[in-house]
Amino acid sequence: MTGADSVRDRVGDFPVAWPVQTRWTDNDMFGHLNNAVYYALWDSAINAWLARDAGADPMTDAAFPVVAESSCRYLSELAYPDDLVVGIGVDRLGSSSVTFRLALYAAGLPPTDRVAAVGRWVHVYVERDTRRPTPMPAEVRAVYEAAL
Amino acid sequence: MTGADSVRDRVGDFPVAWPVQTRWTDNDMFGHLNNAVYYALWDSAINAWLARDAGADPMTDAAFPVVAESSCRYLSELAYPDDLVVGIGVDRLGSSSVTFRLALYAAGLPPTDRVAAVGRWVHVYVERDTRRPTPMPAEVRAVYEAAL
Amino acid sequence: MTGADSVRDRVGDFPVAWPVQTRWTDNDMFGHLNNAVYYALWDSAINAWLARDAGADPMTDAAFPVVAESSCRYLSELAYPDDLVVGIGVDRLGSSSVTFRLALYAAGLPPTDRVAAVGRWVHVYVERDTRRPTPMPAEVRAVYEAAL
Amino acid sequence: MTGADSVRDRVGDFPVAWPVQTRWTDNDMFGHLNNAVYYALWDSAINAWLARDAGADPMTDAAFPVVAESSCRYLSELAYPDDLVVGIGVDRLGSSSVTFRLALYAAGLPPTDRVAAVGRWVHVYVERDTRRPTPMPAEVRAVYEAAL
Repeated sequence: MTGADSVRDRVGDFPVAWPVQTRWTDNDMFGHLNNAVYYALWDSAINAWLARDAGADPMTDAAFPVVAESSCRYLSELAYPDDLVVGIGVDRLGSSSVTFRLALYAAGLPPTDRVAAVGRWVHVYVERDTRRPTPMPAEVRAVYEAAL
Repeated sequence: MTGADSVRDRVGDFPVAWPVQTRWTDNDMFGHLNNAVYYALWDSAINAWLARDAGADPMTDAAFPVVAESSCRYLSELAYPDDLVVGIGVDRLGSSSVTFRLALYAAGLPPTDRVAAVGRWVHVYVERDTRRPTPMPAEVRAVYEAAL
Repeated sequence: MTGADSVRDRVGDFPVAWPVQTRWTDNDMFGHLNNAVYYALWDSAINAWLARDAGADPMTDAAFPVVAESSCRYLSELAYPDDLVVGIGVDRLGSSSVTFRLALYAAGLPPTDRVAAVGRWVHVYVERDTRRPTPMPAEVRAVYEAAL
Repeated sequence: MTGADSVRDRVGDFPVAWPVQTRWTDNDMFGHLNNAVYYALWDSAINAWLARDAGADPMTDAAFPVVAESSCRYLSELAYPDDLVVGIGVDRLGSSSVTFRLALYAAGLPPTDRVAAVGRWVHVYVERDTRRPTPMPAEVRAVYEAAL
């Protein structure tokens, strides 16, 4: 039993497809994407999606999300300078928390529709000042509901 | 059931304690350590430990480890410029793979001995040229056995 | 007299315009792009351009470029999640070295055509094994000449 | 004439010596420290020094420093997992700005006292709300004066 225990490993399993770019420093000494970069790309994709579709602003919003858990299962290699895609879906939606299923794969993606990595990610909304859990904003919830 | 499913969350649960430093860019807009940084610190600690104790050289070794799975459960906040410690233990040791339990916590650590994050990490050894699984080197195995 | 001493600060001063994406972790605690990220983006843009147009492969090429000098003058703020553009031009082309002028600016760029940062960057080609200077490959030189 | 135009390239040229650690991801595909990492390490060392000696807090201080210019001259290679040292000195001290000379070198440093890289860095203090230049705090100035 692992962190990404319900593997859905096809592009079609993820309602949102968010294009992301790779960088020179993403490749490590083995010439492939470093394992921590997968998480950084998921983080960037989720938050850019929330900025565009829910107007989220991390510097001023009274409530913002912190990561409670994350996990990744690495299925095949990726590398700079390839363009990639983050797949996002919502598995569970609570009052103050949301659980995502995530994927990362190369744009273009022949010869199969299998993704290169799958993950799981739990966001909990907290108040800026107290850092205590709080219900997520309505605009954010609406975006998540559309990705269930 | 989550990615870090057998929580051992005390400093004493980890045989190896590896000091790590934080950086300005580790803090995100919320003023705390970004979630992907935990994985980068674990990666750096594991590989520096293998370089020192097993003579591992990622640029020339015929067999090297790639990450098959990783996960993290975030229990409390950490922040630059604090000095931190990575805790490392070996949970399972196969012929070509090793499963770590990992922790991250502030150096000093009052008032409790609870760690700030726990994780799980699976390394699989592969041949440099073929990227096919291969038995890990004997020097590496000896280091892992001492951390079981 | 500074590192970016001949300021050409308009979009039109740079023959190559390479789109780059920002990431969550690019913003520091002040909510704007961290200063080191400018260099990482320039590095990524230059090398992706060389991969596409000159077929450069950093893992196998017998000669590859190392950075001898770099500098940046920061003129205005940039921030994730905005899409950016790297401007690239060649100022000097030697046998084994090339000097770039570089820029970074927001895609879209109203209300002026002033860039947000200008820089200077010197690449020296070295042999993989000896790390001694060596003439750059002909395919690479052709790409640089087109950007003079 | 380059960004690091007054080369002082010996350890003794820098009044402050701040130990920094390397990370797995600092090495790029060529097996040495990526050029942008030098800037990230300088940033981390300067700000940790200001936190410790001047009580600077980037999340709440009314005035904080932004980078106006930076440059680096790369003299020899460095690599993870080596421990490094940042050298810091103050070249010029104005009302709202400070110009540093910087170095990076391996801890231990035989067989010479030559540093591996030298740099120049200009910090300008700005008000948090307006981002307009403002005199630096007295506690910070005192720290800088001691490093002239």
